[in-house]
Amino acid sequence: MNFKAVTYILGWILNIEGALLLLPFLVGMIYGEPQAYSFLIMALVCVAIGGISIFKKPKNLTFYTREGFAVTALTWIVMSLFGCMPFVINGDIPNFTNALFETVSGFTTTGASILDDVEALSHASLFWRSFTHWIGGMGVLVFLLALLPMTGGSHMNIMKAESPGPTVSKLLPKVRETAFVLYAIYIALTVAEFLFLIIGRMPIFDAVTTAVGTAGTGGFGIKADSMAGYSPYIQWVVGVFMMLFGVNFAVYFLLYRRKFRAAASHEEARYYLIIIAIATAVITASLYITGSMPDMGLADKVRHVFFQVASIITTTGFSTLNYEALWPQFAVMILLGLMFMGACAGSTGGGIKVSRFMTLFRTVRKEITLFFHPKRVVNIKSEGKTVAPETIRSINVFICAYAFLFAASVLLISVDGYDFTTNFSAIAATINNIGPGLGGAGPSESFSLFSAFPKYIMIFDMLAGRLELYPMLILLAPEFWKSIVPGRKFK
Amino acid sequence: MNFKAVTYILGWILNIEGALLLLPFLVGMIYGEPQAYSFLIMALVCVAIGGISIFKKPKNLTFYTREGFAVTALTWIVMSLFGCMPFVINGDIPNFTNALFETVSGFTTTGASILDDVEALSHASLFWRSFTHWIGGMGVLVFLLALLPMTGGSHMNIMKAESPGPTVSKLLPKVRETAFVLYAIYIALTVAEFLFLIIGRMPIFDAVTTAVGTAGTGGFGIKADSMAGYSPYIQWVVGVFMMLFGVNFAVYFLLYRRKFRAAASHEEARYYLIIIAIATAVITASLYITGSMPDMGLADKVRHVFFQVASIITTTGFSTLNYEALWPQFAVMILLGLMFMGACAGSTGGGIKVSRFMTLFRTVRKEITLFFHPKRVVNIKSEGKTVAPETIRSINVFICAYAFLFAASVLLISVDGYDFTTNFSAIAATINNIGPGLGGAGPSESFSLFSAFPKYIMIFDMLAGRLELYPMLILLAPEFWKSIVPGRKFK
Repeated sequence: MNFKAVTYILGWILNIEGALLLLPFLVGMIYGEPQAYSFLIMALVCVAIGGISIFKKPKNLTFYTREGFAVTALTWIVMSLFGCMPFVINGDIPNFTNALFETVSGFTTTGASILDDVEALSHASLFWRSFTHWIGGMGVLVFLLALLPMTGGSHMNIMKAESPGPTVSKLLPKVRETAFVLYAIYIALTVAEFLFLIIGRMPIFDAVTTAVGTAGTGGFGIKADSMAGYSPYIQWVVGVFMMLFGVNFAVYFLLYRRKFRAAASHEEARYYLIIIAIATAVITASLYITGSMPDMGLADKVRHVFFQVASIITTTGFSTLNYEALWPQFAVMILLGLMFMGACAGSTGGGIKVSRFMTLFRTVRKEITLFFHPKRVVNIKSEGKTVAPETIRSINVFICAYAFLFAASVLLISVDGYDFTTNFSAIAATINNIGPGLGGAGPSESFSLFSAFPKYIMIFDMLAGRLELYPMLILLAPEFWKSIVPGRKFK
Repeated sequence: MNFKAVTYILGWILNIEGALLLLPFLVGMIYGEPQAYSFLIMALVCVAIGGISIFKKPKNLTFYTREGFAVTALTWIVMSLFGCMPFVINGDIPNFTNALFETVSGFTTTGASILDDVEALSHASLFWRSFTHWIGGMGVLVFLLALLPMTGGSHMNIMKAESPGPTVSKLLPKVRETAFVLYAIYIALTVAEFLFLIIGRMPIFDAVTTAVGTAGTGGFGIKADSMAGYSPYIQWVVGVFMMLFGVNFAVYFLLYRRKFRAAASHEEARYYLIIIAIATAVITASLYITGSMPDMGLADKVRHVFFQVASIITTTGFSTLNYEALWPQFAVMILLGLMFMGACAGSTGGGIKVSRFMTLFRTVRKEITLFFHPKRVVNIKSEGKTVAPETIRSINVFICAYAFLFAASVLLISVDGYDFTTNFSAIAATINNIGPGLGGAGPSESFSLFSAFPKYIMIFDMLAGRLELYPMLILLAPEFWKSIVPGRKFK
């Protein structure tokens, strides 16, 4: 493995993280909080170590697939380790495991929290906590790609590893330009949400943290009741923007280029919106059939249902009510299904992704068609193009790896002895980067009930979920560790 | 579709079922039970309808894949519809939905029961209930294949549809001979278990029903406490024979042919036995670590653990204790995992099958290897032979279809409003043909708590699980119903 290049990239990452840590420091200064200095300290530490690492630029900056995946996994681990230290130093989250869990949950845009009283935190910590969502949503490596010139297909190999979805759609011929456009759209949408929230008279601090938390489809709130205390207008704004951040960003690029017809015919985005509409309609109907929340009018019911549906399918995790207690089991099961579905590929949302589901569904449909018409040639299409058999194979293997990791995780965290609903939904919520699960890990609870070992399992799962398994899985492969032995090379 | 051939086969099936229904009639006569006459009535009905259907042998008895799958699905549905009527007529299970559920559960070797008081049943009904396991275990179509001469690849196309596992291993060049050998092994093992049980002084009626229930890996007991009341010797015998019926029958054929080395090197059987050993050891250890069942010695602990492990992995469903109440959550999760694993292909056990898991695991392993050695050619092997890409593809699609059906079923049965553990494990227990689940559907409960609609969902799932999805799924395809319109043909 090209270790010099990996170290060089990690150095840059630490420099960027050092710069970003100055933001919570400034927020803390504004509120006159002593906790702010912990962010300054870590900013200096990051820049010091990062500065040494980039001091000498390696001659060979080529990244093959394996290095792309390895550097991606290491980037996220290093960022989380350094990013959690301010919480430990300033005492907002004194326990290291908890601080790491909270930070990984932030960067991976999961939003699962170990905090029992979130409102006790300093503004500096609250801001950093929400801001990690924004950093992790688009991916800091993608940001780096926009800045750093590299050789050959290296950019692509890194982007492939960090971007969600079965394939990377290059919006522009050059990866650097693509990364730049993605960040531009990301920033524009975040600012738009912030402005809409300010119009709704949301306090500035709340609006900033909510906007960055929505943008990354993260879900950390700054209130104990998440979004329940805000006005219906604000809840609609957050709900709509959650939905928007779950759309494949290629659609926004097409809109910006005024290719309206192409944008409107984007298959994955269309299915994604249809699924949201159907889920909202079916759950609302189920509320009437079962007589749930009888004191609430249709408009309020639709708002709450749409909000939870958008929050869960985009894997954000904000909530406006405790759906598990108030809704019928059937409605909760639809939400659980949406947890796995996830948003569009090429968005900031997590989960398995709508496009993967579409392809899987079509492979099953194809198999059944072949029973009746054995000689027919059935091509599986996506976005109007035939999907390469290689992509289908990789999606299938992805699903298998996902199922194995899922089952192993549920088994391992069951050592704490909690019930199946809690364990199953806790893993569903972390591996899909959603946040709240059901039962003991439900929307009104926190993950503080778990002991340290299950927390580390879930830390692994959150990272595996955000990076779509392989970057984390290769860390488990013996080949990876062999390659670290000095002097040994990949064949 | 070749309807004349399908009708002809269904006629034969009804004749066989009519003959088999005379056995519970005889049992009832021995015990002087009036309920016995319901079996005689249905035997006559079956033979009457069956006799008409086979009166004229169709000229063309060719079965293509689609007809093979369709006739298999229809066979199982018809057998269940006729087979459940004695329960309704004699009043042992007066409700039709319940009687159908119980009969499908029997034929599919699931063993999930809607009876709250099994000991209230007549001997005739109890015998028929257990005997349906034996009929369904090997498959009545396989039996018919051994008797009925047919043209071309028809035998193979039917056997493919009814036999569990990703591929059908023809033990002998001719399918008829293979079917004959399979039934010979099946009968020999059943008789052996019966004799071992008699040696342990089990009452003859108990020994017969237990032996046929074990052979089909079904799980219907004749006692309210399943196998808990029998002696340790009997529990060991049943445990060991459950394990034996989960072994790929090809191994027994090799043993019979004195090919001991080939038998010993059968990969799937070896992994299957290793998994049983590991699961038994780990669960036993977990009992000591958590201090569960403190009054019990090591030998008793191992016996109980081995029994439940063998019962669950083979998808039989007998139990000697209420593991859900007595064991730690971690141990229960291992059992839940084994529910999905299932036994060997080519056995009477259900589930996804060990060989499918092996192949899936190897495809994931291959994907990870390719990250490190992109140019290496990695072949996925099974039983020493390279697995055809077509087989891998079909296994992958199988898993996807399985997951879709599973998720849809959990959603649909949640209308009754039971908790997630109950719904999830009820579907896991029926689609994998196990029997008892967890929670409300646990080993000490019955499926009577569900209303009619969820019961029909589970009836579909039990059939889909036994027939490995496709025969049932094509019944849902529009192409199938179009083909039924007279005058229309498959392209």
